[in-house]
Amino acid sequence: MRLLTLSRDLTRRKAREREALFVAEGVRAVAELLDSSLDVVGMLCGPQLAGTERGRALVAAAQGKGIEISEVSEREFASAAGTDSPQGVLAVGRIPERTLEPLRARPKLRLVVLDSVQDPGNVGTIVRTAMALGADATLALPGTVDVWNAKVVRSAMGAVFHHHAMTASWEELRLFLESEGIELWAADRGGDSPASLSAPSRLAVALGNEGSGLSEPIRASATRTVTIPMNPAAESLNVAVAAGILLAGLRG
Amino acid sequence: MRLLTLSRDLTRRKAREREALFVAEGVRAVAELLDSSLDVVGMLCGPQLAGTERGRALVAAAQGKGIEISEVSEREFASAAGTDSPQGVLAVGRIPERTLEPLRARPKLRLVVLDSVQDPGNVGTIVRTAMALGADATLALPGTVDVWNAKVVRSAMGAVFHHHAMTASWEELRLFLESEGIELWAADRGGDSPASLSAPSRLAVALGNEGSGLSEPIRASATRTVTIPMNPAAESLNVAVAAGILLAGLRG
Repeated sequence: MRLLTLSRDLTRRKAREREALFVAEGVRAVAELLDSSLDVVGMLCGPQLAGTERGRALVAAAQGKGIEISEVSEREFASAAGTDSPQGVLAVGRIPERTLEPLRARPKLRLVVLDSVQDPGNVGTIVRTAMALGADATLALPGTVDVWNAKVVRSAMGAVFHHHAMTASWEELRLFLESEGIELWAADRGGDSPASLSAPSRLAVALGNEGSGLSEPIRASATRTVTIPMNPAAESLNVAVAAGILLAGLRG
Repeated sequence: MRLLTLSRDLTRRKAREREALFVAEGVRAVAELLDSSLDVVGMLCGPQLAGTERGRALVAAAQGKGIEISEVSEREFASAAGTDSPQGVLAVGRIPERTLEPLRARPKLRLVVLDSVQDPGNVGTIVRTAMALGADATLALPGTVDVWNAKVVRSAMGAVFHHHAMTASWEELRLFLESEGIELWAADRGGDSPASLSAPSRLAVALGNEGSGLSEPIRASATRTVTIPMNPAAESLNVAVAAGILLAGLRG
């Protein structure tokens, strides 16, 4: 019963930050968590999980790793689940301690900076994209959805377990960029096309809110604005698609 | 009452194809539909719509255009709505007739081919991306979610009203590409990086299913395989992100 209460509690960001724990939900996310190096505190299973082969394999894998498994009713499971049609499995994992320190003094560096990106699906897809395209870290500034939100974890398809995704304050990031001499480029209107630019070996690229774009301090600190050339009749690109195009175009 | 029954009916693809009508739901999608050149058959409003300024402005805009407005109860509206928290507005629009014919003999051409792409959010985001990056059309092959599905319409953010998105059979597309001498490139593993290629002025790029990739006939017909270089530890990119990177990288 303790794991059920804990899982419910961890739907709130405050609880995740206090406990340094998060929830991965669904067969795929849990399987990826078990395969990662992260510490798994326990697994919560509803009766529907035993109905599928993948579900049974997952339980066996968790048992093999000595992970505590708590079985609950379908109704209890639903009370902790974030999805409409839960697959009957979630795992509680320990949030790894990640700081900016290991990113210092790298000869090549690509950082993705998220400034109030609010949709969990977008943030998860950006983390997945950043990992796939070889970025070193994704830094979520205040106003951005928590990278350990269950929906972010799900749409990142396991990438958040491996990629250096973390929350950072703007002050902390600003000092880091300054002391390391790393340029910050802003993805915004009215700038240069990535194809026309030669990117420095160490670079941070900032992407803004889905509706209102980048905030003033980030805009003001950027040494350059990059703009993906677009059909003038189109309003905008999805922020995760924009992140992919910029990371691919600014590989350096 | 007729519009309510019709809207409910149009949640099924068969009904949309028979009636050549579709549903746009939510304030933003309806506003974009009213601003487009598409024919609007009627608008269905729940009582909650009048509670917001944007909602009232939308009703006034529809009245100004002489569009039939049908007011229903919140419960009736919910029975036709595809979202969990409906904003109380949907419009029924006429599906424009789109064929491959106007795409013939263009000196420059970029076609996006979707081969069993199943998530409506992905297909909508691809249509939005294709329009923004200047592609001429998006062709949804059988097995791909209908481009007039309400979730596709919503995530395309209005782009499906303007961009030449349409369903096509593989046979029809194959004959078109052959007769026009247009190359088909396949987005798949084990091919060349877009950065290493010089794209022909007329090109079709095929993207496959989220899990299983491209089907055999498409693979076999492609003259080249393009692969976005990825971190080997990463499993894959989201298909809409991949579409954006390829369209941006193969502008030609």
